[in-house]
Amino acid sequence: MIDRLIRKIQEKNNPTVVGLDPRLSFIPQWIKDENFEKYGKTPKAVAEAFLQFNKEIIDHIHDLVPAVKPQIAMYEQYGAEGVEAYIKTIEYGKKKGLVIIGDIKRGDIASTAEAYSKGHIGRVDIEGEEFEIFKEDSITINPYLGYDSIEPFLEDCRDYDKGLFVLVKTSNPNSGQIQNLSIEGKCIYEIMGDLVSQWGEGLKGSSGYSRIGAVVGATHPEEAAKLREIMPHTYFLVPGYGAQGGNAEDLKACFNRDGLGAIINSSRGIIGAHRMVENKERFKEKEFAMAAREAALAMKVDLQKVIG
Amino acid sequence: MIDRLIRKIQEKNNPTVVGLDPRLSFIPQWIKDENFEKYGKTPKAVAEAFLQFNKEIIDHIHDLVPAVKPQIAMYEQYGAEGVEAYIKTIEYGKKKGLVIIGDIKRGDIASTAEAYSKGHIGRVDIEGEEFEIFKEDSITINPYLGYDSIEPFLEDCRDYDKGLFVLVKTSNPNSGQIQNLSIEGKCIYEIMGDLVSQWGEGLKGSSGYSRIGAVVGATHPEEAAKLREIMPHTYFLVPGYGAQGGNAEDLKACFNRDGLGAIINSSRGIIGAHRMVENKERFKEKEFAMAAREAALAMKVDLQKVIG
Repeated sequence: MIDRLIRKIQEKNNPTVVGLDPRLSFIPQWIKDENFEKYGKTPKAVAEAFLQFNKEIIDHIHDLVPAVKPQIAMYEQYGAEGVEAYIKTIEYGKKKGLVIIGDIKRGDIASTAEAYSKGHIGRVDIEGEEFEIFKEDSITINPYLGYDSIEPFLEDCRDYDKGLFVLVKTSNPNSGQIQNLSIEGKCIYEIMGDLVSQWGEGLKGSSGYSRIGAVVGATHPEEAAKLREIMPHTYFLVPGYGAQGGNAEDLKACFNRDGLGAIINSSRGIIGAHRMVENKERFKEKEFAMAAREAALAMKVDLQKVIG
Repeated sequence: MIDRLIRKIQEKNNPTVVGLDPRLSFIPQWIKDENFEKYGKTPKAVAEAFLQFNKEIIDHIHDLVPAVKPQIAMYEQYGAEGVEAYIKTIEYGKKKGLVIIGDIKRGDIASTAEAYSKGHIGRVDIEGEEFEIFKEDSITINPYLGYDSIEPFLEDCRDYDKGLFVLVKTSNPNSGQIQNLSIEGKCIYEIMGDLVSQWGEGLKGSSGYSRIGAVVGATHPEEAAKLREIMPHTYFLVPGYGAQGGNAEDLKACFNRDGLGAIINSSRGIIGAHRMVENKERFKEKEFAMAAREAALAMKVDLQKVIG
């Protein structure tokens, strides 16, 4: 998986992942109205509207970016129908050649972790018949419960060439509350970094990078630099660019000298581009995905400055 | 919510929550066959089998226990149809008067945390129409991301009288890898305990206990005792009894002197009771839920020794 991701990053010369985190306020009125007419003002209508919106976004960016990252919370909040739209979004993205990073941040133990793993990146066995349910290429997971919450995922990563991004240092304002607690001069996020690096040791691709990556926020560049040093073979999934306040300069620390080692996420900045004041005049309502394409192009140019 | 839970614990004189974590191997063959016949060997068949199994378990225990705790991973692994069975299990449990603790262990930031909160314990707004989607009374959440991953949930706890159980010290063997790291003589789980206690300060019920509870494993009694002291007004959700190796004596530390303060979970020990060698002879296949009832009764007696 990690080699495939890197190949796509290199082909497209663009280390961007577009976050597919739709919310109702992002969906153009005509899409909402079409679906409300069919299904009423129901979770089903929202789920269908999300899927229609995502497909159009994917159609307009799939030649530009290597990967998309749907955030399951946005779908799950609408129940089973939302989850169905999440899965269909993944299927559509894969059909268009994109690597799918499922932002699910699951974290549980033993047989429960195994259930998440089998459902999302492995196979579910129903009395001899095997099913791929969610079909992500890679997922995010939360390590607060320790190694036995990670282990079942490692097996499926090995068996099905899948990947993980383990939360190490997140981009939110209060991330330091736990993650920056310091033990004999070492912060929790550094200790986590060490662990994630170890866990990924046996799962390196031919690129030298491991299938076990880390989530490292763009909003803390000095910390990213420290982690880059601790984890030279770990790919970073980097949230916080754009809307959350990180800029291209801050991202430098996330990359290795080979220009690899990080993939930068933008969600609202791309899928919500049509809502920006300056774009409202330039794009018709039906052209919302062209605004997303333009934003993705601008981000690509911005990132060139960093890795170029 | 916490007052309601305590009232039910007192009514039934039983601080037990039954974990509804079905797995295919627990489901009696006749239930599987019925559903495979209708739907083929598909995720839909498994989802329907889980629901049928759960309903029968609930029918046989709802007069004995105050609460059930469905583990969403077991359902989610089967995709949207699994999630549908999770939701229907919750609806059925509520109809039978049980408090529902959704074991979802979600943890994310800002608008994403808000989406989980609205979907699970709040309301989802679809252009002026409000929907309750998952309908749990309380859910488990993961605090690794810090306070901004908790805050959106607190609001819905206030507005809709719901509850949380925040992971503090889990019951699994590697839980100490992060949770027991020690900072100036204080472990991460103690620091978490302090935080959870603070977060719950403004959300106390008339019982004096807060709607914001903590997950504290039964497998570490000395640590539970420390936490009980740090967090006198926090209700503990305690996994690890039975199958995971904790016994009644170990649980003492989780309770306050008033005999309140903890609700003990058992999953496999109850819903898998029909699979125990001694029970296979005593109960017919169709009577699996009677074995669960007997196990729940035995657990109640066992817990009496602790709080009696």
